[in-house]
Amino acid sequence: MRARELGIRIGRIEPGPLNAVTDVAGVRVGHTTLISGDGPLEPGAGPVRTGVTVIVPHDGDIWTEPVFAGAHRLNGNGELTGLEWIREAGMLGGAIGITNTHSVGVVHDALIEAAVRAHAMSHAAWALPVTGETYDGALNDINGFHVRPEHVHAALAAASDGPVEEGNVGGGTGMICHELKGGIGTSSRVAGSWTVGLLVQANYGERALLRIDGVPVGAAIPVTDVPSPWDQVEALGTRAGTEGGSIIGIVATDAPLLPHQCARLAQRVGLGVARMGSYASHGSGDLFVAFATGNRGLSRGAGERDPRATVELQMLPDQQINPLLEAVAEATEEAIANALLAADTMTGRDGITAHRLDPDWLMRIMRAHGRP
Amino acid sequence: MRARELGIRIGRIEPGPLNAVTDVAGVRVGHTTLISGDGPLEPGAGPVRTGVTVIVPHDGDIWTEPVFAGAHRLNGNGELTGLEWIREAGMLGGAIGITNTHSVGVVHDALIEAAVRAHAMSHAAWALPVTGETYDGALNDINGFHVRPEHVHAALAAASDGPVEEGNVGGGTGMICHELKGGIGTSSRVAGSWTVGLLVQANYGERALLRIDGVPVGAAIPVTDVPSPWDQVEALGTRAGTEGGSIIGIVATDAPLLPHQCARLAQRVGLGVARMGSYASHGSGDLFVAFATGNRGLSRGAGERDPRATVELQMLPDQQINPLLEAVAEATEEAIANALLAADTMTGRDGITAHRLDPDWLMRIMRAHGRP
Amino acid sequence: MRARELGIRIGRIEPGPLNAVTDVAGVRVGHTTLISGDGPLEPGAGPVRTGVTVIVPHDGDIWTEPVFAGAHRLNGNGELTGLEWIREAGMLGGAIGITNTHSVGVVHDALIEAAVRAHAMSHAAWALPVTGETYDGALNDINGFHVRPEHVHAALAAASDGPVEEGNVGGGTGMICHELKGGIGTSSRVAGSWTVGLLVQANYGERALLRIDGVPVGAAIPVTDVPSPWDQVEALGTRAGTEGGSIIGIVATDAPLLPHQCARLAQRVGLGVARMGSYASHGSGDLFVAFATGNRGLSRGAGERDPRATVELQMLPDQQINPLLEAVAEATEEAIANALLAADTMTGRDGITAHRLDPDWLMRIMRAHGRP
Amino acid sequence: MRARELGIRIGRIEPGPLNAVTDVAGVRVGHTTLISGDGPLEPGAGPVRTGVTVIVPHDGDIWTEPVFAGAHRLNGNGELTGLEWIREAGMLGGAIGITNTHSVGVVHDALIEAAVRAHAMSHAAWALPVTGETYDGALNDINGFHVRPEHVHAALAAASDGPVEEGNVGGGTGMICHELKGGIGTSSRVAGSWTVGLLVQANYGERALLRIDGVPVGAAIPVTDVPSPWDQVEALGTRAGTEGGSIIGIVATDAPLLPHQCARLAQRVGLGVARMGSYASHGSGDLFVAFATGNRGLSRGAGERDPRATVELQMLPDQQINPLLEAVAEATEEAIANALLAADTMTGRDGITAHRLDPDWLMRIMRAHGRP
Repeated sequence: MRARELGIRIGRIEPGPLNAVTDVAGVRVGHTTLISGDGPLEPGAGPVRTGVTVIVPHDGDIWTEPVFAGAHRLNGNGELTGLEWIREAGMLGGAIGITNTHSVGVVHDALIEAAVRAHAMSHAAWALPVTGETYDGALNDINGFHVRPEHVHAALAAASDGPVEEGNVGGGTGMICHELKGGIGTSSRVAGSWTVGLLVQANYGERALLRIDGVPVGAAIPVTDVPSPWDQVEALGTRAGTEGGSIIGIVATDAPLLPHQCARLAQRVGLGVARMGSYASHGSGDLFVAFATGNRGLSRGAGERDPRATVELQMLPDQQINPLLEAVAEATEEAIANALLAADTMTGRDGITAHRLDPDWLMRIMRAHGRP
Repeated sequence: MRARELGIRIGRIEPGPLNAVTDVAGVRVGHTTLISGDGPLEPGAGPVRTGVTVIVPHDGDIWTEPVFAGAHRLNGNGELTGLEWIREAGMLGGAIGITNTHSVGVVHDALIEAAVRAHAMSHAAWALPVTGETYDGALNDINGFHVRPEHVHAALAAASDGPVEEGNVGGGTGMICHELKGGIGTSSRVAGSWTVGLLVQANYGERALLRIDGVPVGAAIPVTDVPSPWDQVEALGTRAGTEGGSIIGIVATDAPLLPHQCARLAQRVGLGVARMGSYASHGSGDLFVAFATGNRGLSRGAGERDPRATVELQMLPDQQINPLLEAVAEATEEAIANALLAADTMTGRDGITAHRLDPDWLMRIMRAHGRP
Repeated sequence: MRARELGIRIGRIEPGPLNAVTDVAGVRVGHTTLISGDGPLEPGAGPVRTGVTVIVPHDGDIWTEPVFAGAHRLNGNGELTGLEWIREAGMLGGAIGITNTHSVGVVHDALIEAAVRAHAMSHAAWALPVTGETYDGALNDINGFHVRPEHVHAALAAASDGPVEEGNVGGGTGMICHELKGGIGTSSRVAGSWTVGLLVQANYGERALLRIDGVPVGAAIPVTDVPSPWDQVEALGTRAGTEGGSIIGIVATDAPLLPHQCARLAQRVGLGVARMGSYASHGSGDLFVAFATGNRGLSRGAGERDPRATVELQMLPDQQINPLLEAVAEATEEAIANALLAADTMTGRDGITAHRLDPDWLMRIMRAHGRP
Repeated sequence: MRARELGIRIGRIEPGPLNAVTDVAGVRVGHTTLISGDGPLEPGAGPVRTGVTVIVPHDGDIWTEPVFAGAHRLNGNGELTGLEWIREAGMLGGAIGITNTHSVGVVHDALIEAAVRAHAMSHAAWALPVTGETYDGALNDINGFHVRPEHVHAALAAASDGPVEEGNVGGGTGMICHELKGGIGTSSRVAGSWTVGLLVQANYGERALLRIDGVPVGAAIPVTDVPSPWDQVEALGTRAGTEGGSIIGIVATDAPLLPHQCARLAQRVGLGVARMGSYASHGSGDLFVAFATGNRGLSRGAGERDPRATVELQMLPDQQINPLLEAVAEATEEAIANALLAADTMTGRDGITAHRLDPDWLMRIMRAHGRP
């Protein structure tokens, strides 16, 4: 069940056919989901509630053909590698990986390995992968380092341009959002004649602050009624992690945006997060990347000997960027709502449980606030 | 009439006694409001609907004693001078001025003159004032350059630590917000045991997108019922300026924040703006500064000959910053709501009219959405 | 006398025909130089040693047709307005003004006025001028505010695409560099088949640290032999201002650079400054803008009703940007050297004197270090 | 042989007793150097010319006690993880790792593992390591992924506060600088009464541009006399990698700097790199971190229930920061020179050879340019 199927229509721009990041032509998403074991945490043994999600940015040779990209940091208590190159050159080369906080390195190197395998990489080339994370240690044996290179390769192999599985999948498997079960969510908008798609790994926030389409939903689902997994973590004597949330947001568009325009879209992810009730807490890693496939062939001319060779581009005029900016904000809201609605209740290590957002309950709250 | 008096309680943190930026001890605000003339625009003659607002950051000698500060750009179609110094050294020295877009320079130089007058400025010192703007050309003869140095000096002389006049005053005199009459608004929060105050000059946004405390107010006050001044501008044959909006936000706190912590607060102003329905449109100058008075005497040691002389500081631990981050987001919402509610309907040049947000109408909408 | 005429050939890329920023087609430079009075400082009365320099970025209608631009801050103890827009939208609209620190406002507003005059500016348009400064208060009555709007208009009217006057002219009139007389300097490079031009207003640095083409020139011209104006300032009982230096650098190129590429060029100005011996001291406002005229017509499509209308661009492939990066660094060195060599000895307020860099003395030092 | 032992005295500030980053009290450095095999490249088999270097920032529990830090990007064609946290919170927690480009992930995760081992990491804590890289694929089988977690643990175990081995060690083992053999270099300065130390992994630049203390050394050691390894790479039919250089710079100081002051120091590393002749080419990853140990106990108050609990800090007054800024620039020059002088000629995969900088040859060039 997704937000829109429930009748929750966030914003005023229509989604694309899949209402997913894969509505942007060429974009593919793949997940590897790792769920095994139950009971007390034994580091290295489990229980395992984690995974990896990959976003393939276009249908060409992603390892050699970059697309324009930009980034934004709303709050930096997190990791998203590859941002120095995106900020410098405005380019994204290769697939993006999202996983848990302590598996960033293995995913990073596996993406390099994938590039090497794909190309018998030139002896004088290198890769700077984009790999992000949020923290799943409340449910998952995060210090067991269960994500392995083969899981990254499997996610890449599985990447599809069809509907995107949401909730407890891939990197989102063990994530918690507004003290409910979170995870992967996606949405899209057809903004003007361009498509904007968004995928989030949602793992942030406090219950009391959750809003959906402006309605104070969280206040109406108190932790006395639907317990918070963070209270269970705290009861185990470890530091409470409400603040340990984060959200990674990946924006894709087929519009011909330049790098600085991509960065503007990336900042708008934070506006959608704000509308959901987040204030981007200190412990949050709220990091966003936007890429635009509307210009391809950016490496053309690279090997040219003609020093006047240039690359022909199209640019969306700034005067037409507003629908895209608006689309990012509202698609972010909807992607997070979708993550919450898709994720089933999950019990992880030490019996800690993150409850799902019950759709019937949600709709009762929405109606009480004048929503259809 | 302010939002809270109407029963609109945004967020969960309580405001200070004045619910204004002046709740932060030592902060003072002064306005010079310029309203004269009616009828067709005659550049240089009027009609005049503009002014200047100054924020005095502390009760000491503001021209020689800086306080820590940080800044954030949500969207950069605007001017806020002095940011390079704030970003480099994390310091705010002197009063902040806010005015219309085409009077930034005169206010900037008048603030330097005020520093010179105050000190018989040393022959080898200089000032880098912080001066911001939003565009009031829909109502005001902005190309008539009606703000003069004496208006800045008058605002400084009038600066008070009492209640802050809101709406059609000072720099906010001719401003338009969500296609209603906007202007100056303020609010505060007592976050933990620290006070956070906020002042905005609100001049942004589209009617249809206005939300107050999450309720879609703007959609319920269509421009067919309450006309938009931008439609009148467009009917005059000039480019429609819906996108011409902007918001300047100034955050003050008595917490002992370091410069980078101030910058984090500044970014949260944008989260409040987002919750009001803005997506930070291309034409917007959404620029924010936060300063913290919790450390004083920052220049101590400057003249010391002892090269090991250091300045003693207090720092708010990051683990206690969350209430302040949250406070900024919700005080921003309330300050904008206050600006809308305080501003009376105004008719400016060429008969263009910006209507007030009618409080009765607003409360009917709020109640229809389940709000008390 | 310029560096190259003396046989000092900095770097390995050849300059353009004028060895000036005006080698970039369409770029024009104009100065208004204000020199009057002698003797003791009487604020408001003089002596006056200041002015304003304008850079006109292209040969079209500069007020309505922007070009791509980027910026960099090496050290932020200074002002360069308009940077928020350059960072957000990557565009420079209008002429750039450079003046003294306390005349930024008047120049800023005069540039707006020039735009208004040029266009009977639309009733819903605004300008965000780029105006920079360095501090000339050692020689000039800076608190007398002697730069007036008419001086800006005169500089604009005088702007020429021919050779650029250097040294004690325009905004550079009263500037001091490495405790010698500084001011305006310019240089250019033909990098690959593109031209890069650079103009500096040089007002930074310590004598002992001055290097020219790597040769430690400053150490060989001690202040015991050629007195420092800052020692005279200090002797007058005001704070010594060695650290009060700054350098504004404006880079122009005809290459088709995107905004983020412009920002990369802007950062390389600092590399040239570093080679001259600067470490970018705390008191320095080292702010740089680069603009690229290789794409024009950026506003095309703005008024289009076709939402798929895009703007066609050319992009210099990143693989060909190295010569431009290198060109900026070495042209910066040469522009500063030119400023030092062009500036005659000047005596300003209170008899304070900034001495010229004597070319014969310089060449003796160069030869002692194995230079031809 | 180090630069200073040869009589090359860069700058005017004296180094500390070790002239190494370890002159900053508490800072330790450890290397694991991996050299094995010869002959043709067989990916996975070798030859191996790589390693990992770790910098331990202080003598306390580095995994739980952060110190203030800041960062700067001169050019972003590289990776240095952990920067989002440094930019957001201004804190460095844990050891820094530097390795080759394709081993960033394994080092990143091994540093997390080290934190876990050290603490039986709390079930609700996470680590965001700082891990950097430069590219050693000209000499090393970089796609063989030869760096393993145990190499990171060994480097940590070996970390010492004594003299720092330079040249072909640790992460610097296979590096090339100015087309000569590069690698690890270090230097320090006693700036005022504070110590500044610097460690670089130097792998950038073109031969012709190399300058040492301003002397054009590279032009006097042409590749016709001392061959360039990049010419050998190109002759093998792979893309020439002159541009593939990078430099990672880590600054340590015992001064009580705040995060934004650390960032200012970090930017000055680039000024030293510029003086060595670099223009920060497109292919370079020139990324710098500075940390300051002058404030400790930054986590105090974290667990406090008293919401007014603050952390007491010392701040170096900005007026005394100049010697530190200058120290960073000149220590960078000397650290690079030391890297070049310490590194022996190395032959790597496919017989590719990077030659050492011959000290006798160097001194002949220096003397020809008037240096003692």
